[in-house]
Amino acid sequence: MLTQASKVNANKVFSLARHYRAVRRRTEVLCEPLSAEDYNLQSMPEASPVKWHLAHTTWFFETMILSAMSDYRVFHPQYTYLFNSYYESIGERLNRSDRGLLSHPRIEEIYKYREYVDTYILHFLEAEAHHLSGNILTAMDTGLHHEMQHQELILTDLKHAFAANPLKPAYKSMDYDASDEIPAMRWHEYPEGVYWIGHDEEKEEFAYDNEKPSHRRFSNTFRLASRLVTNREFVAFMEEGAYARPEFWLSDGWKLVQEKKWHAPLYWENLGGKWWTMTLGGLREVEKNEPVCHVSFYEADAFARWWGFRLPTETEWEIAAKTVKPEGNFAESGRFHPAHVKSLAFTNSPSQLYGDVWEWTSSAYSPYPGYKPPQGMLGEYNAKFMSSQMVLRGGSCVTPKEQIRHSYRNFFSPDSRWQFSGIRLAGYL
Amino acid sequence: MLTQASKVNANKVFSLARHYRAVRRRTEVLCEPLSAEDYNLQSMPEASPVKWHLAHTTWFFETMILSAMSDYRVFHPQYTYLFNSYYESIGERLNRSDRGLLSHPRIEEIYKYREYVDTYILHFLEAEAHHLSGNILTAMDTGLHHEMQHQELILTDLKHAFAANPLKPAYKSMDYDASDEIPAMRWHEYPEGVYWIGHDEEKEEFAYDNEKPSHRRFSNTFRLASRLVTNREFVAFMEEGAYARPEFWLSDGWKLVQEKKWHAPLYWENLGGKWWTMTLGGLREVEKNEPVCHVSFYEADAFARWWGFRLPTETEWEIAAKTVKPEGNFAESGRFHPAHVKSLAFTNSPSQLYGDVWEWTSSAYSPYPGYKPPQGMLGEYNAKFMSSQMVLRGGSCVTPKEQIRHSYRNFFSPDSRWQFSGIRLAGYL
Amino acid sequence: MLTQASKVNANKVFSLARHYRAVRRRTEVLCEPLSAEDYNLQSMPEASPVKWHLAHTTWFFETMILSAMSDYRVFHPQYTYLFNSYYESIGERLNRSDRGLLSHPRIEEIYKYREYVDTYILHFLEAEAHHLSGNILTAMDTGLHHEMQHQELILTDLKHAFAANPLKPAYKSMDYDASDEIPAMRWHEYPEGVYWIGHDEEKEEFAYDNEKPSHRRFSNTFRLASRLVTNREFVAFMEEGAYARPEFWLSDGWKLVQEKKWHAPLYWENLGGKWWTMTLGGLREVEKNEPVCHVSFYEADAFARWWGFRLPTETEWEIAAKTVKPEGNFAESGRFHPAHVKSLAFTNSPSQLYGDVWEWTSSAYSPYPGYKPPQGMLGEYNAKFMSSQMVLRGGSCVTPKEQIRHSYRNFFSPDSRWQFSGIRLAGYL
Amino acid sequence: MLTQASKVNANKVFSLARHYRAVRRRTEVLCEPLSAEDYNLQSMPEASPVKWHLAHTTWFFETMILSAMSDYRVFHPQYTYLFNSYYESIGERLNRSDRGLLSHPRIEEIYKYREYVDTYILHFLEAEAHHLSGNILTAMDTGLHHEMQHQELILTDLKHAFAANPLKPAYKSMDYDASDEIPAMRWHEYPEGVYWIGHDEEKEEFAYDNEKPSHRRFSNTFRLASRLVTNREFVAFMEEGAYARPEFWLSDGWKLVQEKKWHAPLYWENLGGKWWTMTLGGLREVEKNEPVCHVSFYEADAFARWWGFRLPTETEWEIAAKTVKPEGNFAESGRFHPAHVKSLAFTNSPSQLYGDVWEWTSSAYSPYPGYKPPQGMLGEYNAKFMSSQMVLRGGSCVTPKEQIRHSYRNFFSPDSRWQFSGIRLAGYL
Repeated sequence: MLTQASKVNANKVFSLARHYRAVRRRTEVLCEPLSAEDYNLQSMPEASPVKWHLAHTTWFFETMILSAMSDYRVFHPQYTYLFNSYYESIGERLNRSDRGLLSHPRIEEIYKYREYVDTYILHFLEAEAHHLSGNILTAMDTGLHHEMQHQELILTDLKHAFAANPLKPAYKSMDYDASDEIPAMRWHEYPEGVYWIGHDEEKEEFAYDNEKPSHRRFSNTFRLASRLVTNREFVAFMEEGAYARPEFWLSDGWKLVQEKKWHAPLYWENLGGKWWTMTLGGLREVEKNEPVCHVSFYEADAFARWWGFRLPTETEWEIAAKTVKPEGNFAESGRFHPAHVKSLAFTNSPSQLYGDVWEWTSSAYSPYPGYKPPQGMLGEYNAKFMSSQMVLRGGSCVTPKEQIRHSYRNFFSPDSRWQFSGIRLAGYL
Repeated sequence: MLTQASKVNANKVFSLARHYRAVRRRTEVLCEPLSAEDYNLQSMPEASPVKWHLAHTTWFFETMILSAMSDYRVFHPQYTYLFNSYYESIGERLNRSDRGLLSHPRIEEIYKYREYVDTYILHFLEAEAHHLSGNILTAMDTGLHHEMQHQELILTDLKHAFAANPLKPAYKSMDYDASDEIPAMRWHEYPEGVYWIGHDEEKEEFAYDNEKPSHRRFSNTFRLASRLVTNREFVAFMEEGAYARPEFWLSDGWKLVQEKKWHAPLYWENLGGKWWTMTLGGLREVEKNEPVCHVSFYEADAFARWWGFRLPTETEWEIAAKTVKPEGNFAESGRFHPAHVKSLAFTNSPSQLYGDVWEWTSSAYSPYPGYKPPQGMLGEYNAKFMSSQMVLRGGSCVTPKEQIRHSYRNFFSPDSRWQFSGIRLAGYL
Repeated sequence: MLTQASKVNANKVFSLARHYRAVRRRTEVLCEPLSAEDYNLQSMPEASPVKWHLAHTTWFFETMILSAMSDYRVFHPQYTYLFNSYYESIGERLNRSDRGLLSHPRIEEIYKYREYVDTYILHFLEAEAHHLSGNILTAMDTGLHHEMQHQELILTDLKHAFAANPLKPAYKSMDYDASDEIPAMRWHEYPEGVYWIGHDEEKEEFAYDNEKPSHRRFSNTFRLASRLVTNREFVAFMEEGAYARPEFWLSDGWKLVQEKKWHAPLYWENLGGKWWTMTLGGLREVEKNEPVCHVSFYEADAFARWWGFRLPTETEWEIAAKTVKPEGNFAESGRFHPAHVKSLAFTNSPSQLYGDVWEWTSSAYSPYPGYKPPQGMLGEYNAKFMSSQMVLRGGSCVTPKEQIRHSYRNFFSPDSRWQFSGIRLAGYL
Repeated sequence: MLTQASKVNANKVFSLARHYRAVRRRTEVLCEPLSAEDYNLQSMPEASPVKWHLAHTTWFFETMILSAMSDYRVFHPQYTYLFNSYYESIGERLNRSDRGLLSHPRIEEIYKYREYVDTYILHFLEAEAHHLSGNILTAMDTGLHHEMQHQELILTDLKHAFAANPLKPAYKSMDYDASDEIPAMRWHEYPEGVYWIGHDEEKEEFAYDNEKPSHRRFSNTFRLASRLVTNREFVAFMEEGAYARPEFWLSDGWKLVQEKKWHAPLYWENLGGKWWTMTLGGLREVEKNEPVCHVSFYEADAFARWWGFRLPTETEWEIAAKTVKPEGNFAESGRFHPAHVKSLAFTNSPSQLYGDVWEWTSSAYSPYPGYKPPQGMLGEYNAKFMSSQMVLRGGSCVTPKEQIRHSYRNFFSPDSRWQFSGIRLAGYL
């Protein structure tokens, strides 16, 4: 006879199975506009081919959930070598820069792999519905959120690869709206005090280990911009010599500007005196009222300095975001491109905090006080990257909405530009 | 009324049209075993994707023959940018290392491009059959020999890409024969004297500019090995410390051995104490009696020194080859892999001079006395590479037979290993 | 008639002149053991030759103080090009890696340069004693503290250069004492709360801009180790596979371990089964009870993880250090090498907080809340390096004592090892 | 009683001892203008410090002659490690790029080393005067010619280091003469035929192994320019777009032009619209009638192509030079800089064949037919560099006269520019 607890558990598990099917399906839907030739594109070591993303997310479930089961037989003995991303505890793996060479296994094979693992996972959930441990639930949740992260990466990596093609092919045809008018930048003020930061562990919601534990930070009074920095504003910076004047830049940033001859955000091209930019809908003229996107931390920081402001710390960003619903221009909109602010009114809280573009903060990515990485393979998920990276917050127009929370911490090295990353200003009073 | 001369010309042109159709068709036949995912593989900057080879050879005809015609309209205005290999006189082009990113234009589009250009070329030949100039005939011939060179490259580049895949996929399944016995290495002697070297311009046969002019060279007496060096012989060298003993190596070669940790020919792997090698039929145990293949000039030179011999000069090789019919294990055999010597008898002349593997010579690639590069784009075909490369002779098991003559000069940098290159020994008396 | 204020000022200025003479003299005393051949050594781009340090510190005073004076004539018109370190606002400069090529200007010339500038500075102080502005006083103080930083760099850079010489020459002969016994590692606890961090601007003491403004931080309870980590403890880590086990390392650190084949702290060599290390007194066997030194942030962090602890944040370090007198094994001891803990007793506060080795913190170097960089050239002194570096605290055995305060923030990239950098552990309760 | 043979030998040995003293002394004389700070300069891995040259040449005698003697004790056990250049058969050695870090051993110590070895060598010659073997005589001769090669390198390497110093210091002050007029370029013709090339072994004169054996080459008729190419002529090339037009360049050369932004010969700077160049006498305006110098093979080849000519093969150069006395502007002149042609008359043979600048040939450096490298360490002297280098002929203004013969083969990689290398044109008839 089942206990009450096991029934509750079973309900959770049924809902988990539904969730699993939905998330896995969404990944495949993202691939529908692609032809076989697009699946293996790898335009730089940091970006992976679509096929690899499809397989790696599957391998993640296989390794974390299924491989511990006595009666499970791996789909293919070499897939761990091929599709392990960076887990040293799991063993040797293919060089990152060689992922684009995997014309074998064929796409069909990878879809079979997905189906094989899906079948086992769903069967497992059903069979174990009444006995599922908390650890397994966490691992399943992590696998799903991991898959959402890769949904975003499929789009960012494809954009990078398509942009490297002189034909500037579109992922799919798009019809972007534009606007003649957006509100002026104004400021929201926040009082000094000790604030709780990080994921509140009493909430049921999923969160990564790096958002924990909840802890206190002292914050001075500060103000946060009412909206994101626009292309118009960034072009003004460029016209005042942004990329030619060292005084705006951190030393490392200035070195990059010179070495890489940066002269505009990534994907921008000047054609006939006008700025154009690559989008997932192909090449398009830069829309002045949209948020600037594909800037590195160094460019964001330089822009803020030029304008007499600064980037927010991640604490400040979270103080502001904690009271705002995580809604905005996420991947679900299908726009896959940042959008201008819709309303001209000045509201209670900053607009565009969620979605559109990841917002660079001035905070280096480091462990929260009392942080403990998980045991096993998941201990490598976030913890080992806690050096030489900056925190970004709020998600972007290619992030699945479900993935984002006020406490969500994304992180990239300060020179990264291929993510949908933009600028929110902050200041002191 | 047609003159006799124009009739002769017309016959030539009809035969040229047949030739054109045949060569172009052979390129496409080579692609039949491939799936769409294989077409864009690029495993290093020096190797190009199959799709690029298909398009580049077409672009070559378009640019050399059709673009001069007033009524010809290029298939696509950006294809010159995409498919120009290295012709500075034609203009800017895609970075070599980015060829693998061209998931667009699609394969179907490239086949349409081939058909489009083929139609124009054949129509042009027909229309102009009676008036075709010698220049055009030369350009057509060059285009066809150029296409044959790329037929070889399609196979060498695919082999390199497949070898980088841990699954070691086969281009097509192969059934290689082997042999328990081959003849001992013996020597053929050649007397000292002044020899004519290079392409005899009185012969009708096609030859590249770098094989001309025919000229005289003094040669000391020398001897040439009766067959190629085998894997068994190369393994003996390895077992005597080949890759660990600097005394066998040129200084540049020794640096490479250390930097790249070379320890066997390219594609060799030691699995369970046995040597295996990648082939176009997949991974296969190294067959001891087959010619060693995929060695650099430095390895060939070191091997020769170890055994107390040397590599032949290209003059010596040509003196020996001039009296031998250019027959052997070429691409037409479909084996795509070097083969052991079939007959145990000692014959009049060295065996395996043609086909099987390109034979490294000790001659740096340089212009023949009196050499004049052609005018225009073809002036860049061979001439500008006449530094820091070594000459190889005789063709390989992936070279179309028709491409090879005793005067044919191939050239690669001395560190190259992805071509089917092997070792023929020479010595003084 | 002089006002009281101007008299006070004059006293300050006389004391400043005395200070100037003393600091400038100390730099030259450091060079006494050197021969002319040692002055131009540059063993890596990050390290500078002694001669360059002598000139650069002089150029700093010339540029900041003298160049604004209408009647001052620069010593040599090209010295700004030669001896500007990184000040973009001052103009173009010699490549960092070319500093070792300056056999001209001769050493004598550089000493003349120092004398020339000293004469002008001292004359200026005397002449302006009653009218000196606060800005000038700050600039003078900065120049002196800058010179002290370069005194330390002279020693770290010489050590690096001498270590690259297989003869392992000594800077001067040393007689190091050792100890058979040191106290066990114990812990000091600090309660949670909001703490004031940074330089208290009401104090007269000199401080750099990056130590300001004083601001509040919330700290959880934490504990700090009673002494530095020793060579004995680090060897234990090595013997448990430190450099062979990825699980201890941040991802960037593990990459470095493999790329650079790190297998011990910098300067360590295993000779006949024993660890030896380079010192400013030449090669010497590693003394087990001395603090481990010349480790990168990655090694410090990995060691802490292995032992189940962590590195302190800079806030935690400062909370502990604020109540301790800045005394210890500084450059003044002439030992130029870290020393074992002298007393076995457990005291009120951690020992070795000051001197011996710079202590890596887990804090990325970033601006304090409300930070404003100074105007002009000094704005480039600290501010532009606030990315991709970690904070170190407490000074080392080659740091002039006067340079150190509880609020002093040193910063180096996490892979740096040529500074005298070591490990202090921290933990939660 | 001494035989006649041993008396002859003794005379040879006495003369050898005189020669030894003279050559060794000349090396030291070259160092007289230097201060201690100049001795350790190393401006690139290919160039060595003066001190290293002084020690290496000494080590060469010690290793080749003295180390075989039972009663000889090496001066310092680590000197083989420090001063072995590239002899793998002798063992491990210091990285080439670290030679500039040897502030120890001190200069005085190196001069003591020279004296120590000189004493032993001279004592040995005296003691063995009647019994000296041919091998020893060859080794002694080689050591002296080796020392002369390093006399040249001391000057080329110092020039490179001084040129890297923005102060452009002079090695010593010079007073260069110039000329308003030089003869027009005319041509000397040579008939086709089979020629003997290489060192005639019946002559007593010293020659390196790479000049042997004497052998026959067939040469077409050719013509050789009556003088070297001048700066005026090279500037004309530059003004016609030399460094901006790919059509003149070999492919590898064009890549270098773009990568390294070459825009003039090495050491040239455009100051106020005029070309200046570094010399061993300091910066000096480019003298239009002097031979162009410090050009790479690629620049020489491109220049020749631009003017409708070509570079000579080494065979052609030697055919012309064989009948000309090896006299010209060598190091003995003390000018250390190429000079304009003195006489306006057209003479029997080309002028400037010897001295002034090394003349790039179109011949890759390779072994002569029948070449056998010497046994032992000397086998590494020349043989192992026979790949990827081009032959230069004739010596330069920093070459000791005694070093040069018509058969002397110098070799450098085609991108080298820091040697005194220039251009002689050749052509067909």
